[in-house]
Parts: sequence; structure tokens; C-alpha cells
Amino acid sequence: MATLPEGIQLSKINPKFLHSNSTSHVWAFGAFAELIDNAYDPDVGASSLIIDMQKVGTMQCLIIVDNGAGMDKEKLIKMLSFGYCDKGIYNRRESYKPVGLYGNGFKSGSMRLGKDALVFSRCEKSACIGFLSQTYLEAIGADSVIVPILEYSLPDLKRNKDRQCLNNLEAILQYSEFKSEASLKEELNSLKSSVTGTKIFIFNLNRLQSGVGELDFQSDRKDIRCPDPYMADTTNLDCRPLEDTPEYKRSLREYCSILYLRPRMKIIIRGHPVKSKYISKMLYQTEDHQYKPSWMGRNDKPIKIKIGFSCATDCNENYGLMLYHKNRLMRAFERVGYQKQANERGVGVIGVVELDFITPTHNKQDFDRNDHFNSIMSALAGKLNAYWNSKKETQNNDVGKLPDWTWAQCSNCLMWRRLPPGTDGDSLPKHWFCHMNKDAQYNRCFEDEEPDAPADTPRRRRAINKRNKDRLSEVR
Amino acid sequence: MATLPEGIQLSKINPKFLHSNSTSHVWAFGAFAELIDNAYDPDVGASSLIIDMQKVGTMQCLIIVDNGAGMDKEKLIKMLSFGYCDKGIYNRRESYKPVGLYGNGFKSGSMRLGKDALVFSRCEKSACIGFLSQTYLEAIGADSVIVPILEYSLPDLKRNKDRQCLNNLEAILQYSEFKSEASLKEELNSLKSSVTGTKIFIFNLNRLQSGVGELDFQSDRKDIRCPDPYMADTTNLDCRPLEDTPEYKRSLREYCSILYLRPRMKIIIRGHPVKSKYISKMLYQTEDHQYKPSWMGRNDKPIKIKIGFSCATDCNENYGLMLYHKNRLMRAFERVGYQKQANERGVGVIGVVELDFITPTHNKQDFDRNDHFNSIMSALAGKLNAYWNSKKETQNNDVGKLPDWTWAQCSNCLMWRRLPPGTDGDSLPKHWFCHMNKDAQYNRCFEDEEPDAPADTPRRRRAINKRNKDRLSEVR
Repeated sequence: MATLPEGIQLSKINPKFLHSNSTSHVWAFGAFAELIDNAYDPDVGASSLIIDMQKVGTMQCLIIVDNGAGMDKEKLIKMLSFGYCDKGIYNRRESYKPVGLYGNGFKSGSMRLGKDALVFSRCEKSACIGFLSQTYLEAIGADSVIVPILEYSLPDLKRNKDRQCLNNLEAILQYSEFKSEASLKEELNSLKSSVTGTKIFIFNLNRLQSGVGELDFQSDRKDIRCPDPYMADTTNLDCRPLEDTPEYKRSLREYCSILYLRPRMKIIIRGHPVKSKYISKMLYQTEDHQYKPSWMGRNDKPIKIKIGFSCATDCNENYGLMLYHKNRLMRAFERVGYQKQANERGVGVIGVVELDFITPTHNKQDFDRNDHFNSIMSALAGKLNAYWNSKKETQNNDVGKLPDWTWAQCSNCLMWRRLPPGTDGDSLPKHWFCHMNKDAQYNRCFEDEEPDAPADTPRRRRAINKRNKDRLSEVR
Repeated sequence: MATLPEGIQLSKINPKFLHSNSTSHVWAFGAFAELIDNAYDPDVGASSLIIDMQKVGTMQCLIIVDNGAGMDKEKLIKMLSFGYCDKGIYNRRESYKPVGLYGNGFKSGSMRLGKDALVFSRCEKSACIGFLSQTYLEAIGADSVIVPILEYSLPDLKRNKDRQCLNNLEAILQYSEFKSEASLKEELNSLKSSVTGTKIFIFNLNRLQSGVGELDFQSDRKDIRCPDPYMADTTNLDCRPLEDTPEYKRSLREYCSILYLRPRMKIIIRGHPVKSKYISKMLYQTEDHQYKPSWMGRNDKPIKIKIGFSCATDCNENYGLMLYHKNRLMRAFERVGYQKQANERGVGVIGVVELDFITPTHNKQDFDRNDHFNSIMSALAGKLNAYWNSKKETQNNDVGKLPDWTWAQCSNCLMWRRLPPGTDGDSLPKHWFCHMNKDAQYNRCFEDEEPDAPADTPRRRRAINKRNKDRLSEVR
């Protein structure tokens, strides 16, 4: 950058801003999503992410570990600062767009979940530790946010011995749960297994007004649950009966299973991998629609919509529109059209749409509700109603819905492969790999994913109907 | 503060964060509300606020001028930094609580409305100018947010002549629409009329995707309108007919008229004062209810709810709960209970509630929807339904609704005074003053406002009914 003119004030950040800034995430899982996005985005490009609870000393901490590219000191400082986002330049493939755009995800996400975050990162050239801590800043009475940082050389984890560096170390040892430099180095060494990667500890986890920890690690040892998902509408006494809060709002595992439209990264919660749901490929009687609003440019691609019936066992509760932005979930099960009425119309119908050109809200849990968004939603409501009206024989029929195609995810490359008609999804092994695919065109990990399922031709329709009938008779 | 340990990195702010941070305000008027709150809050304590459009050079700017306490250089730096909020210490009266709490209102509000903000402020001891400008920061390629600031001594507006000060001046003259120091000083002098005060210019106003300016200054020369209020629900095709967007979402004048539960500050939009609406005192058949949720502490005061019928001409559209936080509107006309059904039940009923102990969302346009909030909303829905059921004779009766009491606002002290029964509100002069009140207990400006209207006793009820009948016969 150009040299700054001398004597002009720097805008500062008060330590209290760390909390203010995090209040944008009302829902705790929205904060998790920010941290998951950071690992997912192409600048880090992790293929696996671990979310777990770990005790450090006597304190319960949240840990988030990815095997991505890691950060050097310069990148770590940006991560601990506000608004530095150069994810755009890592966008090599058109289909792999970064979710991050505001340069605020780590700050708002981590500080929403707890008071303090300690970041260990190992990139190709160095290993670093950074400390964003409200506890520390309060204790020293800081009037600006400062972030202790340590940098170690590789492979032997040596650091500078000067006083300045020592000040950073002392701050971390005094105010984090790590009480010796050896224990810090141990964490850096643990990242060696994936060559590069980042491990985030979040301490002093947020508590509810009642004093109970906000995250529930007890009810399900394989999950992290959010007993208070902050989103119930308790004022709707008489309309369509108030459903229970959908499971994805309470279960991190469930939320992660639908967080990305095309899952690319293995997420492991408390030791058990999340089985991701490829929602748009799990529908019954899928139809592909296109829609081009009048305000779209001549060269813009029309919006693609997949509509079908949910095959899930909870299809009477979880239905509506799934709205994604650059592969990331923004709104789930958004009821539209008939589905807002107090009757059975529209029940079970799911629409899947990706709206990359509409701006997400500040906390990335919704879209800005501008005129473009509104016109799209209105059109989608109409399409969903029309779909329902055209499917008289399937309406209110609770049994016999099976996905039009069976898809399997490769445990190695994480790509989804469409299996030949007649393949029984339940018969697949727990760990499935591309080379098991009988379709020779898509049986190697380096092959791209099939662009999309073929259109619903009458011939295919008949094949599916036959298969479904066969399956049904098996079930009965 | 304590001396900071040497060599620890400062967390920085990228210029792009100014935009990111402002995206929290989806609705433009939500950004106005932040700037209005700043003038309203007790640390500034303005009694009047001017919002207008002004041309500077050839550019249309938004101006916001208050006659409050003004800022010295130190306070101005805090206003241009993030998270500095010490409004709590100015809280002299229990009933006058500051709305601000996040130390982010000016930044998120001004940068939502335009790219650049120039602040002129005059306090008792000095006059200052501060410049928060995305245009400037982009032009110089800054990698952190820096804020040019000038400080002038009073009364003769002298400043330091050194190079550093000159750098600040040059930045402002080069990148703002003010091209000479004389024109800057002119603005500082214009604040002399109110002794102290602050004037904010917002340049390069936000434009819609279509390229049109977001704010409409043309349709109504006495108002600022927002043609795209970003909030319509276009997916509800068949439920209770989709109402037009309520006027307060489109008209700044209308929004300002309900922005504070107990208005204290005169707001003048484009030369014409806003006639504030004291909603809780403009209802027909008002009932006072109290409610104490089980989770409230023994010493906590119960929640007070006023329920009544709207007397407004638009009462068939604008009804529901008015939810305030520390006197400031958070949600308007929130439909609950019966009002969510596709029938006539609950139409026209308004409930007014102040929930100081529930945390507002990041953009102060809603409450955090936690378990406490949800339990309150559920109880309020029940109360509103019960009120409706008890008012069989008033339901669906469009004529004859007049407020239970007539109130007048003093043009001098802005306090509201209840007028004796039988006073005709329409007969009051345009500028009404406390000394015109026939009630000797409340006919001087230094008297506090009446704590609350007396309970609805049978005797009072009869008096009101008689008055309403008289009025009705006049109307017919």
C-alpha cells in the first residue's frame, strides 16, 4: 500500500466490540457455521474438519481442527483483525466459490461461542499461535484489542528470544488454559499428522441466563446440541399447528448434514463423521424447473429449481424451500405458498435453490430481503403450488417415497456418484469408494462430479416407478 | 488504562469492514434509527434533531443535525472507532436510559446509508471535524481504517499549524465535497446558533441494484421515503390477504412518529416537525395488564402491557404488538395469536409493551428470540386473544373509536399532558404549551409527566362512553 500520511488517527477497536460484534449471531449454530466455512473455503481447502469438546486443565473447551493450508503470522494477524478477506483470489474453480466475504466470520463466530479463542496453526513455512481473548483484555484493562501472537520456525519449533516475543508468550500462558510453552508446542506438533492445519480452542463457553452452558455435550455423546435454538415462534396459537423446532436447529450433527448443498469436506463431530445429506438428490418425483426474472440480464443464467417430495421419515415436518448461497445453506425448510396454510396442501414438498447473486445477511442466516429476493420467492411459491397441484396421486401418501436415484458419497474424494437404477442404497458398505461404482464413467476419484441428474423422461419415470414398487413390496 | 506490554500486535480494521459491518442494517430506516438514537441518548441529550437533504457542490447529501452536547476530539475519535460506548455513566434519571449499548451505531448506520460521512461537532470547549470515508481510504490504498480529524479552539476557530494537522485538513479537502477550509469553518459556525451540537453529512448515498438512489427525496417534499423497504413477505399467497407494506416502513416521517414510546426529542424532517404518536395513549377501551413470568426474580417488576383498539384510520392494517426496548421501538405491529389467522379475529387490537431486560439484536430491529422472549410472546398472544374475546361489542366496529383520553404534547418541553375529559383534541392549537393545560397539577414545563393514566374504573368508563357518544353524534 501507499505510505500513509503522518499524523492521521487510526480508528480503534474497543475490547467490548468483540462481544457487540458477535451479537449478530443469535443462534449458536450460526456461529459454528462461520468457523466451518473458514475451513471449507478455498484459501484453506480442508478436506476434513473435527469439532469436539476437550478438557484443558479443568476447563471444558470447544475445539475445531481442520487439515487445511494453515496460516503464517501475517495471515493469522488478518484473521484476528476485522474485514481482511482475500478469499476471492483463491477461487480457482468456478464451482468452488468461497462463502466468506465479510472478513468477520472468525471474530463474530468464536466470540459468540465463548469469551476466548486460542488458535494454533501450521502452514508449510512456519507454525503460529494467536490469542483473541476478552478475559485477557479485560484483565489488563486494554482500551484497544491487542492479540498476542507467537511464531515458530519449522521443523524444530524455534522462536525469537527477545523481550517482545516473551511478552506475547507470557500473555498466552497467564490468561489461557495452557500453562507451559511445552504444552503449546505439543498442540503445534499434533498438527504435524496432517502436515498443515489449524486447531482452534474456544474457552469460557457462553452460558444461558439461567447459568447453564449454552451447548449441551451430555444428552448425546456423539453430538453437540443446542437446547435453546432461539427461533421458535410461540405466538402462532391457532394456524397450522406449531411444529416442534426442527432437529437441525437443535443438533449440530443434523445442521452440518445439510450445511452445504454439494458437501466437499468431511465433518467429524465428537469422533463420528457427519453423514451429509445431498438434499437435492434425495427427492421423490423430482422436477427441474428454470426461472428467469424479468430484471435479470440477457446473459445471466436462469435460476434452477429442483422440486420433489421429501423421502425422509420426518417429511411431515421438514419441508419447504432450501435456500443456498454459493453452496452454503442460508434458510432451511422455508414454508411458502400453500405450505403456510393450516391444511395439508404442500406438505412434504421440498424445493432446492441456489441464489448466488442475492446478498446474504450480516450473520449469513438469511438473504437480504430486497425486491429481487422478494420477486424470486413469490415465483418459487407459485411453482411449488403448481407442483403440488400436478401430483394428486402422491399428495398425503406417506409410504413408498424413495429417492428417484441412489447416490453414494466416496469416502476418499467426497464426490457423489449416481448409482445405476436398481441399486439399493441400504446395501452399500459404510465406507464406499468411487472404484466400487459400476458406472465406468464415474468410478475414479479424479473424475468430476456428474453435472446433474438427467431430466425426468417418461422412460426413466417408468424405470423408477418399477424400482419403487419392487422396494415397496420388499418393505411390506 | 494500564501500560500495554510492548510488542503485542494491535488488531486492525480493514476499510472493507466499514461496509461489512453496515450490512447488519438490511432496512435503510434501521440505519437512520441508530443516528437518531445517538442524538437522543443522554450523553448528547438533544432536544431537537433535523434530518434533511442538502446539496454540497453538485452532490446530494443527507444531513443530520442535533443541538445536543457536541463532542471534543477525544469523544469524536471514539465515535469513529468501534465499540466505545460509555453512555451508561450519563444515565442520571432512571426513566431516561440510553438506547446505545454496542458502540457501533454511527459506523453501521452512516456506512449503511452512504460511503462517506463528515462530522462537524461543537462542544463547550472546542469544535471538531471528523471524516469516516470509504472513498478516501480506497483512494489512498489504506490497509487500516484511519480517520482524518481537525480540532479548532473556540471562539475564534484557530487550529494547530503543524504538518500533521495539515495532513488531516488536506485529506478532508481532497476527498470530501468541501473544497476550502473556509467552507468547513462555515459549518462549524452554523452550529453556534444552538451553542453546542453536531452536524453529520453523509455523501455518496447508497444506490439500489437498479442504479437509482435508495432514498426517495422526490415523491414527498416533506419526507424521505424508502421505496424498497426490504421486508415484504411475498410467499404467503393464501393466508390472511397480504397487506401492503405498512407506511412506517416506507416513510421516515411515519417511522419517526412511533420510534420512541415516550417521545422526548423534536424531530424535524425536511423543515417540518414530526408529529409524534404516543401510541399507548391513543387507544380505545384501554386495559392495563401485568404479567410476571415464572423465571423472573422476586424483586423484579412485572411486565406492564397496555391493550386497546387502535383509533387510527388505518386500524385494519396497523395492529398487533408494539415492542419497545428502553423507550425505543424494536418491532412494530407484530401480529400474535388470533391476528395470525385468515379471519377477522384480533383485527385492530394493539398491545404496547416495553421489554428492557431482553437483549435487542445486533441491528436493533428485533429482540433476541431466546426462551425468555418466547415465553413472554406466548403469554402476550394469550392476553391479546382474551382481550378480543371480552370485547364482543367493539369487534369489527369500524366507527366511533376515539382515544380514551386526549393528550397534548408541549411544544416547549415535549412532555405529554392529559387533558380534562371532554377536551376535543382537534380543537387544540398547532403549537400547544403546558401553560394551556387546565389541569393545574400539570401546567408547567418543569413538572414531570404524569406517571400513567389512571386505571379504567367504572366511573371513568361511563364518562368516556358519554364523551365518545357526544363526539359520535357530532361526527354523524
